[in-house]
Amino acid sequence: MAYNSQCEHNPGIGRKMKSVCNHKWYEGATAPLQLKKYTQRNNCIEKTYTLGNNSSRSNCAGDGINLFGIGRISHTTCTTFLILAALIHTSNATATDIALDAKATLTHRIDSLNLLVYTFLLTLTVLTIWLFKHHRVSWLHETGLAVIYGLIVGAVIRYAGTSTPLVHLEVDPVGDTKFNQSLPPDTLWMKFPGKLTPNTTDKDPIQNKTYAYAFRGIVYDVEENEIDLKATFDPEIFFNIILPPIIFHAGYSLKKKYFFRNLGAILMFAILGTTLSSFLIGAIMYGCVKLMPEYLSSSFTFLDTLYFGALISPTDPLTILAIFHDLHVDVNLYALVFGESVLNDAVAIVLSGAIQNYGEHYSSTGGFETNAFFKSLSDFFCIFMLSLLIGASMGCFTALLTKFTRVREFPLLESALFVLMSYSTFLIAEASELTGVVAVLFCGICQAHYTYNNLSEDSRTRTKEIFELLNFLAENFIFSYIGVSMFTFPKHHFDAVFIITGFVTAAIGRAVNIYPLSWLLNLNRKPKISSNFQHMLFFAGLRGAMSFALAIRNTASEARQTMLTATSLIVIFTVVIQGGASNFLLNWLKIPVGVDEETEQLNNYRVRSSDAYLQDVDVDVEGAGGLGDAGAPGAMNVKRNEKAFLARIWGNFDTK
Amino acid sequence: MAYNSQCEHNPGIGRKMKSVCNHKWYEGATAPLQLKKYTQRNNCIEKTYTLGNNSSRSNCAGDGINLFGIGRISHTTCTTFLILAALIHTSNATATDIALDAKATLTHRIDSLNLLVYTFLLTLTVLTIWLFKHHRVSWLHETGLAVIYGLIVGAVIRYAGTSTPLVHLEVDPVGDTKFNQSLPPDTLWMKFPGKLTPNTTDKDPIQNKTYAYAFRGIVYDVEENEIDLKATFDPEIFFNIILPPIIFHAGYSLKKKYFFRNLGAILMFAILGTTLSSFLIGAIMYGCVKLMPEYLSSSFTFLDTLYFGALISPTDPLTILAIFHDLHVDVNLYALVFGESVLNDAVAIVLSGAIQNYGEHYSSTGGFETNAFFKSLSDFFCIFMLSLLIGASMGCFTALLTKFTRVREFPLLESALFVLMSYSTFLIAEASELTGVVAVLFCGICQAHYTYNNLSEDSRTRTKEIFELLNFLAENFIFSYIGVSMFTFPKHHFDAVFIITGFVTAAIGRAVNIYPLSWLLNLNRKPKISSNFQHMLFFAGLRGAMSFALAIRNTASEARQTMLTATSLIVIFTVVIQGGASNFLLNWLKIPVGVDEETEQLNNYRVRSSDAYLQDVDVDVEGAGGLGDAGAPGAMNVKRNEKAFLARIWGNFDTK
Repeated sequence: MAYNSQCEHNPGIGRKMKSVCNHKWYEGATAPLQLKKYTQRNNCIEKTYTLGNNSSRSNCAGDGINLFGIGRISHTTCTTFLILAALIHTSNATATDIALDAKATLTHRIDSLNLLVYTFLLTLTVLTIWLFKHHRVSWLHETGLAVIYGLIVGAVIRYAGTSTPLVHLEVDPVGDTKFNQSLPPDTLWMKFPGKLTPNTTDKDPIQNKTYAYAFRGIVYDVEENEIDLKATFDPEIFFNIILPPIIFHAGYSLKKKYFFRNLGAILMFAILGTTLSSFLIGAIMYGCVKLMPEYLSSSFTFLDTLYFGALISPTDPLTILAIFHDLHVDVNLYALVFGESVLNDAVAIVLSGAIQNYGEHYSSTGGFETNAFFKSLSDFFCIFMLSLLIGASMGCFTALLTKFTRVREFPLLESALFVLMSYSTFLIAEASELTGVVAVLFCGICQAHYTYNNLSEDSRTRTKEIFELLNFLAENFIFSYIGVSMFTFPKHHFDAVFIITGFVTAAIGRAVNIYPLSWLLNLNRKPKISSNFQHMLFFAGLRGAMSFALAIRNTASEARQTMLTATSLIVIFTVVIQGGASNFLLNWLKIPVGVDEETEQLNNYRVRSSDAYLQDVDVDVEGAGGLGDAGAPGAMNVKRNEKAFLARIWGNFDTK
Repeated sequence: MAYNSQCEHNPGIGRKMKSVCNHKWYEGATAPLQLKKYTQRNNCIEKTYTLGNNSSRSNCAGDGINLFGIGRISHTTCTTFLILAALIHTSNATATDIALDAKATLTHRIDSLNLLVYTFLLTLTVLTIWLFKHHRVSWLHETGLAVIYGLIVGAVIRYAGTSTPLVHLEVDPVGDTKFNQSLPPDTLWMKFPGKLTPNTTDKDPIQNKTYAYAFRGIVYDVEENEIDLKATFDPEIFFNIILPPIIFHAGYSLKKKYFFRNLGAILMFAILGTTLSSFLIGAIMYGCVKLMPEYLSSSFTFLDTLYFGALISPTDPLTILAIFHDLHVDVNLYALVFGESVLNDAVAIVLSGAIQNYGEHYSSTGGFETNAFFKSLSDFFCIFMLSLLIGASMGCFTALLTKFTRVREFPLLESALFVLMSYSTFLIAEASELTGVVAVLFCGICQAHYTYNNLSEDSRTRTKEIFELLNFLAENFIFSYIGVSMFTFPKHHFDAVFIITGFVTAAIGRAVNIYPLSWLLNLNRKPKISSNFQHMLFFAGLRGAMSFALAIRNTASEARQTMLTATSLIVIFTVVIQGGASNFLLNWLKIPVGVDEETEQLNNYRVRSSDAYLQDVDVDVEGAGGLGDAGAPGAMNVKRNEKAFLARIWGNFDTK
């Protein structure tokens, strides 16, 4: 048995390593069978390993964007490829070179297959969504569908695939090397086979060659690091590729009139509510983990549970808003849910960053220190406000650029400019160590508010359509991934108590966010938030992409892994069950659906005393003016009884 | 001096390493100054190094797509960040952890900055293009502009920036490890500081921690591998991210009527012409390098020069076609240039792959072997035809899917489906070890031919616009990169003789492609290719993205580096000079411009005896029918005197 013998012949790795063999390599129902197959073809077994650098197909120069480095996937398809590879590569060049080449090629193929799995999942989701829409199925929504398909495919990959462990070797510096740096080196060079005795026949000795190894990170736990990763992506991909278009689209497609009209309530829910909910969840969870078995509770610090609070607090608008949109639900409710969930994503990411900084940089003990607390607090506000500033100013800069140059004569150039400026907002924020996601959100809002009006007709539809499509693909990808990763991501840690408490505190946190704050708001708000609206707001607290992305970002400790598992399950449950039930709840709470925005707007001219939910609604059409070339509001320029204080100040400033 | 002392204290690395220090670390005009600055802040000097895993911002789990791993860039901006970093990170945690964290953060920032440079370049190009178009400047085109801006920024980065060398360490396996594999391990684990003596004070000793290092590739040359990479990308990015949308767009925007009418000539030029040109260039270059100094000529094999022939033969349509498009040049000339350059990209990539396979897998000597030659030949045809098949069948499958489901009721779903199917074509081809780029080309042609007609109005404009924008951004990015990399890519090797011969043979190869084949074609072709058209075809042989991508893919040997330099220069020269001059040449050759496609079409109904260039032109409007729901050609369904034999056969088959 090739795998076992490798373990046994690795005394430098020791007992733990061996337990990995027993524990992981036979993982999955069909694994032993597959293993046997591999062992029979002993000479091509090495090809099943995957490399760290997936891009060096021809071992050529330049390192950098690891295109397909999606981690490791292993399908039964691989075996087919192995046979193919064995057939094709009957060659005369150096054995090691050929094997390495084949290995790199196989890695590239497996990575392509891996991406293909997700493309297939998305295609399937698209087709099923169409069927559902066609047959007017309302009890399951597209994101729920993506999650369910993801779960199925994840289970198949986990139990039908074979595992492809990484082979590792412990090394020491050569001889009497002196190295006077306080950091580990960036690359290691090792001669191979060098002092090792390679597994080849004597008549075909392997030439000594030097290979480079690039720094990857600290090895926390021998067992954890040894597990193969199947169909998993780098967590940073969510923050740098998947979330930005989603968040930008949210800002760009904001219905600004209703957003600004409800700005006070939205800011209250998003900033105060999310912070409140985070700390409450953090506190309850901390109390809970202290009651848990010793081995787990010792892993959690208060900062960990607080981080959990921050990541589980933001709500996800996707599912609920898609339903609202389909049903033409009351626009103010729509604006509240939308505005809140867009902003609380921004709050949560900055808050969790501040909590992390508190633990890593400011606090020496991890307990409460006034100094560190205020440093983190100032971090939170500085990063949030600076990111907002960068986003807003880039948005306004684009508006000026499109207004004062006549680039709109060439729509393609204009659209390219729009995309480039928006993307550079993200990059500028990231390069300044701020939060790119927050910056693109406010950039998107400003682009919608100002730039949009300056664009040519062609660019308007083009930019809208592009970001709509990007958003659709990104959100479905992330929900598929949540499903798949439940099975394939190796760093899950199931703990029933934590998960159940997680569910309960998530609901409590949401309730604390909505009900007391609504009561507070209603004291001084004319279109009061009715209790049915409050229930709907409570119920609309699905957790989604941002929670998951924050949870999977750091899975170094057992505590973090437990949090990831709980978060994944909460996301899956809320998206599938709550998302599916929201239709019924809308009926049950008698929330008006089928409200056309135009009708709504017309209704606003008369005081709708018959309207049980929103009394005394005003129009704030002026907000659409500003820097842009918007069509003159004309007869609609009615402005009376303005109640949203912040919106008024901003509107006044904005329209000057 | 921290850098020097590091070298001197590394006896395991030896003299060569030291020469690197002298040679590279002081590279650039301001480098010594910067170095001094760094040395003064000795405790944060480590932060300037960049890591192999750029994504492990928090050292967390999961490896995979290395988002911003663009290699290394170093701006003067970095110094600002370093100071910032030094100010912010005044902390109590373990020194190494903090330093590693700062290093990872800095890497992420630098990568963001790096991308920002390109975003800025593209923005600048967009704005300048607009100015040029606005003022009707015709002597410089957008791709030429992108190259020139790239050159300027590349020079600035090279001479104004500081270099950030990678620190490497030679290692051996721990003690008495036995390792019975014939391949080097995937990861190395090293204890740090372990046996090393780190450069810290005694009162703050560094804890021993295990770090993982991932396999990167073979170290060919100690000096070359030590150079820092500035603002460079993994070459594979071109094949997996940049080229696919460009090539797909080419296929998707093909004017199929004129393409199919000129199919015979196009196939002749593209397949026969490119192969002929490749072998001729390869042969001449081989003769030439044998006359060169020994150290270089020994590095070249006939396969190398043949590879050069294959990579320099494909022509780039971008610049010339943009000009043709702006001027409404004769549609048949347009179709010839366009069709040829689209197809010869496909031919070149498969041909170069076959040449590489010949060298690596089939031939033991590198010389001519009948067996190996025929294996490579069958490779060439199999890969080309199978890729074509995959592309075409995925295209047709999408057409069927859009025809027989009513997914067009939901344009967003439909567009998503379209994008997903097209992308999966690329992935399927890559996963089957075929050529993804060729597959997407034919997928694009089929999508335009069949699927396009089934799409909803909304999806038609959306898909057109999306791919137009993607194509625009991708092509400008690649030309900027060609400019920047002239200065920043470390593996250039200038050799005047090779470069000059490269220019001459590139022209000869183009001439051999055009003139003899045109003569052959004219024997049996009714709308003869006039000599002025032939001159224009010769002149339209700009080299572009594909040549560059193939050249930069493999820069392991000195021969390959010399080829990269020659290719880059040929691309830059042809794009800037030939592209700029093509306007004048069109005038000088009296080629009809301002031909409206509709006018042209109307003219086709009468035999234009006055037309000196194309006698007896026919209409083949039927080709637009097929699987699609195209509007019935109606009165235009005229079909007489069809001369393009292949087009007729295909048309007959296609319209059944």
